[in-house]
Amino acid sequence: MKTYTVRFLPHEKDITVSEGANLLRAAMEAGVHINASCGGEGVCGKCRVLIESGAVEGGITEKLSQQDIEKGYRQACLSTVQQDVVIRIPVESVIDASILNMASTPRCTARIQEPDFNELKEQGLFQPPVEKKYLELPPPVLPDNLPDVTRLISFLKLEHGEHRLVVSLPVIRKLPDILRESDFKITATLARPVHPGRKTHVINVQSGDTTDRNYAVAVDIGTTTVYGQLINLISGDVMAQYGDFNGQISYGEDVITRIMYAEKPGGLEKLHEVVIGNINTIITRLVKRAKIDRDDISAITLAGNTTMTQLMLKVNPRYIRRSPYVPASTLYPPIMARTLGIELGDHVTALVYPQISSYVGGDIVSGVMGSGMYRTDELTLYLDIGTNAELVIGNRDWLACAACSAGPAFEGGGITFGMRATKGAIEDFSIDPATLEPMNITIGNVRPKGICGSGLIIMVATLFELGIINSKGKFNRDLKTPRIREIDGIYEYVLAWGAETQIDRDLVLTEPDIDNLIRAKGAIFSGCLTLLEEVGLTIDDVQRIILAGGFGSYVDLEKAMTIGLLPEMDPSKVTFVGNGSLMGARMSSLTNRIRMDVVEVTRKMTNFELSETHSYMDNYIAALFLPHTDINKFPRLKSRLDARNKTQRS
Amino acid sequence: MKTYTVRFLPHEKDITVSEGANLLRAAMEAGVHINASCGGEGVCGKCRVLIESGAVEGGITEKLSQQDIEKGYRQACLSTVQQDVVIRIPVESVIDASILNMASTPRCTARIQEPDFNELKEQGLFQPPVEKKYLELPPPVLPDNLPDVTRLISFLKLEHGEHRLVVSLPVIRKLPDILRESDFKITATLARPVHPGRKTHVINVQSGDTTDRNYAVAVDIGTTTVYGQLINLISGDVMAQYGDFNGQISYGEDVITRIMYAEKPGGLEKLHEVVIGNINTIITRLVKRAKIDRDDISAITLAGNTTMTQLMLKVNPRYIRRSPYVPASTLYPPIMARTLGIELGDHVTALVYPQISSYVGGDIVSGVMGSGMYRTDELTLYLDIGTNAELVIGNRDWLACAACSAGPAFEGGGITFGMRATKGAIEDFSIDPATLEPMNITIGNVRPKGICGSGLIIMVATLFELGIINSKGKFNRDLKTPRIREIDGIYEYVLAWGAETQIDRDLVLTEPDIDNLIRAKGAIFSGCLTLLEEVGLTIDDVQRIILAGGFGSYVDLEKAMTIGLLPEMDPSKVTFVGNGSLMGARMSSLTNRIRMDVVEVTRKMTNFELSETHSYMDNYIAALFLPHTDINKFPRLKSRLDARNKTQRS
Repeated sequence: MKTYTVRFLPHEKDITVSEGANLLRAAMEAGVHINASCGGEGVCGKCRVLIESGAVEGGITEKLSQQDIEKGYRQACLSTVQQDVVIRIPVESVIDASILNMASTPRCTARIQEPDFNELKEQGLFQPPVEKKYLELPPPVLPDNLPDVTRLISFLKLEHGEHRLVVSLPVIRKLPDILRESDFKITATLARPVHPGRKTHVINVQSGDTTDRNYAVAVDIGTTTVYGQLINLISGDVMAQYGDFNGQISYGEDVITRIMYAEKPGGLEKLHEVVIGNINTIITRLVKRAKIDRDDISAITLAGNTTMTQLMLKVNPRYIRRSPYVPASTLYPPIMARTLGIELGDHVTALVYPQISSYVGGDIVSGVMGSGMYRTDELTLYLDIGTNAELVIGNRDWLACAACSAGPAFEGGGITFGMRATKGAIEDFSIDPATLEPMNITIGNVRPKGICGSGLIIMVATLFELGIINSKGKFNRDLKTPRIREIDGIYEYVLAWGAETQIDRDLVLTEPDIDNLIRAKGAIFSGCLTLLEEVGLTIDDVQRIILAGGFGSYVDLEKAMTIGLLPEMDPSKVTFVGNGSLMGARMSSLTNRIRMDVVEVTRKMTNFELSETHSYMDNYIAALFLPHTDINKFPRLKSRLDARNKTQRS
Repeated sequence: MKTYTVRFLPHEKDITVSEGANLLRAAMEAGVHINASCGGEGVCGKCRVLIESGAVEGGITEKLSQQDIEKGYRQACLSTVQQDVVIRIPVESVIDASILNMASTPRCTARIQEPDFNELKEQGLFQPPVEKKYLELPPPVLPDNLPDVTRLISFLKLEHGEHRLVVSLPVIRKLPDILRESDFKITATLARPVHPGRKTHVINVQSGDTTDRNYAVAVDIGTTTVYGQLINLISGDVMAQYGDFNGQISYGEDVITRIMYAEKPGGLEKLHEVVIGNINTIITRLVKRAKIDRDDISAITLAGNTTMTQLMLKVNPRYIRRSPYVPASTLYPPIMARTLGIELGDHVTALVYPQISSYVGGDIVSGVMGSGMYRTDELTLYLDIGTNAELVIGNRDWLACAACSAGPAFEGGGITFGMRATKGAIEDFSIDPATLEPMNITIGNVRPKGICGSGLIIMVATLFELGIINSKGKFNRDLKTPRIREIDGIYEYVLAWGAETQIDRDLVLTEPDIDNLIRAKGAIFSGCLTLLEEVGLTIDDVQRIILAGGFGSYVDLEKAMTIGLLPEMDPSKVTFVGNGSLMGARMSSLTNRIRMDVVEVTRKMTNFELSETHSYMDNYIAALFLPHTDINKFPRLKSRLDARNKTQRS
């Protein structure tokens, strides 16, 4: 795809964007503030910019006079970049460049970390758990009338050097007919032992040569969504992906209400059925999308949090929610997928990711495995942020983990206009330090209807860094702008006026909203700190952060550090693995090495119950500030704040 | 039980019998002929004997005059021994003692070989595959809130030195509740790996201490009958036994008709269901008889011929009956009993005995394992005689096997008055060499209605040895007795006149009957000979014979050698293991050693298709004589016949 340079004046900031990029988004990414209340739909008409050189496509609306248009004014939110272009932002009041540049910092999201299978291959870690072998057997005659299975085993040994083979009953049942229907030319599917030297299982036989078709399914069972991927076991590629809401939502929003439902008569069975139904729907979609034969799926790997895993396996999670919070098991043995109700061939074994504790589950273990953090030397912090946040700290030598309840703020819960990251959510924000006018960018470039988690972080960080809110999250009462107001004793900032929204109400961010975010980030930061203290380390020892969860892909790292959600660190040392659970499940589908290592990792990973530590509560209270009571933990922010104060004083 | 001595005159033969023994049977066992047509019911009145010393109980009937009774005459068939006694048999014609003693030889059945568990223990072979361990676990508290399974495993290690443990899903499902219901005092059932060093599986957990209750079920699936035993895994004892007709009989009498039925749509499923139904009925009876809790049954072992095994496992036996007679498999992996429909706990694994070929199945392998022949130095012939006879020859170093179709003669099939060994069947027989009057003993001491296999062998052997039939099985046309007659060109011997029978017809043994027996025994002997030739040995190399099958317990060894069914050998070297299949299944329930060895034995056992050998047909034709065309193969018989000829000539 072609890329072009956009230069913003008077900021003198350049940014490279892809052909067709939205100009308002380009400005936001470059850290250039443009007033924009309506989220990018052209309604508010505030994002007027002057094209000084080059041209953009679109951006002409009735909000602009003919004269403006002729001068070269366009609405940034409706303009797309088609060539190199120089843009001037009309600065409404004369402010100096240092303040201009303080208004917004360039967007900085975590580098996406993808599994690198070539690297795995080079390291000898690519050991597919399931392989296919083609055979042309001599038909039996008298007296060479060996049993069919014996013939199969003998020739697998003779022609493919296979030994220590076990043949499953389903294969024994179908082998005699398949051999004779296919003129004794068949393909055998072999499941490799996780531990070398153990037995290889012949799990399937098929007519003819099907060695070029060998697939696995990887599933992440989230409390909210269930995702599946169809993996090509020969190329390592993802052939198809499909996600769906976890059908259990009808029986309870979160794990606790699900557990309560599971305790009712028939509840466990119901929740089990529902999620298995989800998995079956996903498999059907994957098979359809990838246009493959279901019988060519040879394996399935599933990862989920402890409650989701127990529900999927029909293991009552009753004791997870009661002190002392005991899950049923860490490891689960391989289970025939069919016995769980999963509609795959009767040769398919389900591998279920092990759990560490009631609140650090298989999704986290899967992420740890998939991200490779257990193989690195660097001290790494793995962080999966959702309603519950799970933390893992460690490296190849040791691993410690904990979970903490962050509350639903990052998913929009407990925030007046909070919402999930769907269309109409303000996902990016900046503010004019002089006029205090906002720049809102919404998912889908439509009029705003709420604020999603990543947008909320950016807002609070921006407001804090510009001194609009203080370290306690309270608005500066001295600022004169209609955007900041007090309603029924509660201070709030108006992000968009009713007419500019989809909800015909003023869309605001309130002090209680900010307080909720502070509590959420405080819980997580305190969790990290406490876990580090428990193992005798400090936050400065962390060399690398891996973010997981849908939230992590959008979060602006600098802003997350500004509010004290993440410890301060070179953003290049922060990576994002997306759905870590799904990634680990995919990796396990591709290499037995991970299946072997996971047992050891599970054994090695020490769980800490934060509520049982002496320091968690103290750390939490200390973290209920922006960024923290101890600003020295955030030296970069401290120097920026110092610079700002100096500028403002001058 | 008290024993007494019975002395028979003029034969001067003593026999020791148990108190209450039937006098006619005592005579038969001693090899003393007493005329008796009615099988022991007192009807014919021929078995008059004179009590010379001591007294018997009973034996007084209306067939005896008051004078006779006073003189001390009694009917032997209704007399029982209650003290030492001397009995004189009225010999109706004067014959000399040598002929007298020729009339009948003492009964000689094979010594019953029982598994000796003490011996197994001494040899270190007693390695129970399933064991129970009692645990009192400390309840979880914060922060010691290990997952329940982890707690279980830790304490199994700590308190019982168990390691390398895998916990099954059903156990994980029930563990949390059981722990809390039983105050954390539980019993874990451990399934030991067959190969040391592999994993031990925790297959069940129960409340409280149940370590004194641990059972297994052993099942023999015969074509006609299914037998089950409940085994106490602590003592090694059989707690209960139950047998039933194989319900598949309704769908076909023999394996071939069953296979044909299985090939029909739904046929395989039906036959599978029916035999599983049999097994479930048996288990229910065993549980009831032994008054145990079904949940305390920890294992089940099943043995059956190849067709029965495949039907039980729902593996289509289609190719077993078609050349080149290929079974599906030798080994079957351990299978969860529940998945087969067997109504045992979901922790119970079914061990299925491996097959060698289409006609040498798991019942034979089980017998070989149970009898221990694979561990001996002596060259042993294992012989399971039924409609199909299976032969195994070998010792600890090598094993060869074959099957041959003997036809149904040994089970009464193809014999005019043939019947199974049930009430009313003549099971024992002798003949007065002078008068040619018979002595019949029937099962149940009732009037005869037919002849069972063991009775048939005794009859033909006796008739042959006394020269009443020749080596071709033809009656001596010169003998003058109404008992031998020609009807429609067919010669026959009248065993009992119509009035003395239950069938109101003369009960006879015909020349075609004898011919059928000769063909049956010829097939088996030829099988043995051919198999030995194939491995470069002769019949003289055989050092020991093990008989299996219901038939083998009653067969008179000397008589079986006389007709050439068994090679001539010191009867003390012949043992009888009864239902060898059931015995092996029982042994496997008690020691993993057999489970380990059986894989090696299966690999070692070479199957020969007799029909494919050059010599089988020649050997068969040579064996269609009494005892064989080559009388020199039977030196003891030869010398007896020579002696008889000398006597008769003198």
